Amino acid sequence: MSNRIRGVLAPVVTPFDEQGKVDLRRFVEHCRWLVANGVGLAFLGTNSEANSLSLAERLLMMEAVFSTDLDTAAMMPGTGACDLPTAVTLTKTATQAGCAGVLTLPPFYYKAVTEEGLYRFYAELIEQVGEESLRLYLYHIPPVAQVEISIPLVERLLKAYPNQIAGIKDSSGNWSHTQALLKQFQNENFDIFPGSESFLLKGLRNGAVGCISATANVNPAAIRNLYQHWHSDRAEDLQAGLDAIRTTFERYPMIPAMKAVIAHWLKDPQWSAVRPPFITLSNSEQRALFARLNELSFNLAGH
Amino acid sequence: MSNRIRGVLAPVVTPFDEQGKVDLRRFVEHCRWLVANGVGLAFLGTNSEANSLSLAERLLMMEAVFSTDLDTAAMMPGTGACDLPTAVTLTKTATQAGCAGVLTLPPFYYKAVTEEGLYRFYAELIEQVGEESLRLYLYHIPPVAQVEISIPLVERLLKAYPNQIAGIKDSSGNWSHTQALLKQFQNENFDIFPGSESFLLKGLRNGAVGCISATANVNPAAIRNLYQHWHSDRAEDLQAGLDAIRTTFERYPMIPAMKAVIAHWLKDPQWSAVRPPFITLSNSEQRALFARLNELSFNLAGH
Repeated sequence: MSNRIRGVLAPVVTPFDEQGKVDLRRFVEHCRWLVANGVGLAFLGTNSEANSLSLAERLLMMEAVFSTDLDTAAMMPGTGACDLPTAVTLTKTATQAGCAGVLTLPPFYYKAVTEEGLYRFYAELIEQVGEESLRLYLYHIPPVAQVEISIPLVERLLKAYPNQIAGIKDSSGNWSHTQALLKQFQNENFDIFPGSESFLLKGLRNGAVGCISATANVNPAAIRNLYQHWHSDRAEDLQAGLDAIRTTFERYPMIPAMKAVIAHWLKDPQWSAVRPPFITLSNSEQRALFARLNELSFNLAGH
Repeated sequence: MSNRIRGVLAPVVTPFDEQGKVDLRRFVEHCRWLVANGVGLAFLGTNSEANSLSLAERLLMMEAVFSTDLDTAAMMPGTGACDLPTAVTLTKTATQAGCAGVLTLPPFYYKAVTEEGLYRFYAELIEQVGEESLRLYLYHIPPVAQVEISIPLVERLLKAYPNQIAGIKDSSGNWSHTQALLKQFQNENFDIFPGSESFLLKGLRNGAVGCISATANVNPAAIRNLYQHWHSDRAEDLQAGLDAIRTTFERYPMIPAMKAVIAHWLKDPQWSAVRPPFITLSNSEQRALFARLNELSFNLAGH
């Protein structure tokens, strides 16, 4: 049995202060609340607006969270970048701090690149980081990155770096792709996290090790609850409850919607700030979202 | 009449040394050869692998070229990034060095973002740079960035920042889009550069001010020649000559192909190095490319 990270992880949303700078205090508070609700910290991910942050800002956030008493064994920060030097710096910093793993995008500027080119990107990253303890999770999110991590690429990387290539987050949104990954790799010491709790029960039944999902930022305890009780009679009901919340958020741009809900619950309007190219939800969008969540008896317990 | 930059610009390819680091000596030499052949320097662009370079590397390249006697009035470096702080740093550095302009991608990680979000990105960039002398050229390259700069967005930015928003490079590859831009904006103190010399003659006849094109890295004098003689009887022939070279390069991944040709002509194999996700051309691809260029009597005169 591997002692690798598993369970539910949140791609922690990134708060900004009145000057538009990363708000480290609010960030660490939100991390603490998430951990208290049983989920791990996949901070600096897509839903963290990580690619809207400079390298210096990302390093400051790592430093802020690593200097708390929060356990790095529950952390899988995003460390991808279009350029290798930046990806190396972030990956090395996270690994040396003891993070359970890193979640790493392929280089996403150039499109229609070769499998060989992507292989070399990841291979050079692993070689340049040069840490035996590195556990790299491939980040497959073709709807956003527009660059695929194909199954043959996974195979090749896993063969070359069986200790470092630890798994994948599959945010293809395509269950048949997740299923193909599970079928081929679940017994290869390669861990598969669907990129949404919509696939949590189905995923766990087919060998997934948890999920890494945007809405774990706002609904952590309930998602964690299904993860813990997926063998129980209530599992289908728990999944249906998660789906109702998830689909409510999916009616809006996910990041501004989650931040609006956190701002609302904390009575802290500053939490709704996003960086361009995102914009905050309009007042009418917010009202409609909060009303629907009320109908679902949803709240951010104890935040 | 505006005294803005016009003519042919090359998105200068970036050489790497044996250790994979940016080779500043080879870079400056190539810049000098390009300028001697009559083209301006749109370094740090797509064909420069700029998004495969860290911020620190991009700043080193700016410093290297700004510290030569090359005229910044012929320079339009790329300063785009997914994150505002990086785009601000690059744009400010180039503007304060006296560059004729900067060529700035929209934030390209998140897809299907709103016009308002993109407007705010550019508006905040201009405000945060805070330089009256900034001349920002929007970089429209949807086949790669997968983010559109729509005509209504151009209109809005131009209205808000008539001095700073100076023009656009249109690498849509779609002549009807370039034509729509020319029709609407050519008398609005807004300069349009097609993103390929394939549209140079057609562009100049319809009000474009030049072009910014990959192959200007290897075929600068001939492209410049058409720019200077587009009123002449020979213009169609000159365009046909450019097209024959361009389509030869287009059979291969453009960046590795151009670097292979430079390496071949300079008898300097190190020039063919690229960063992942690119890979160098295979030997057989190189042989076929060189043979075809020979048939076309193509050479890199005086490099």
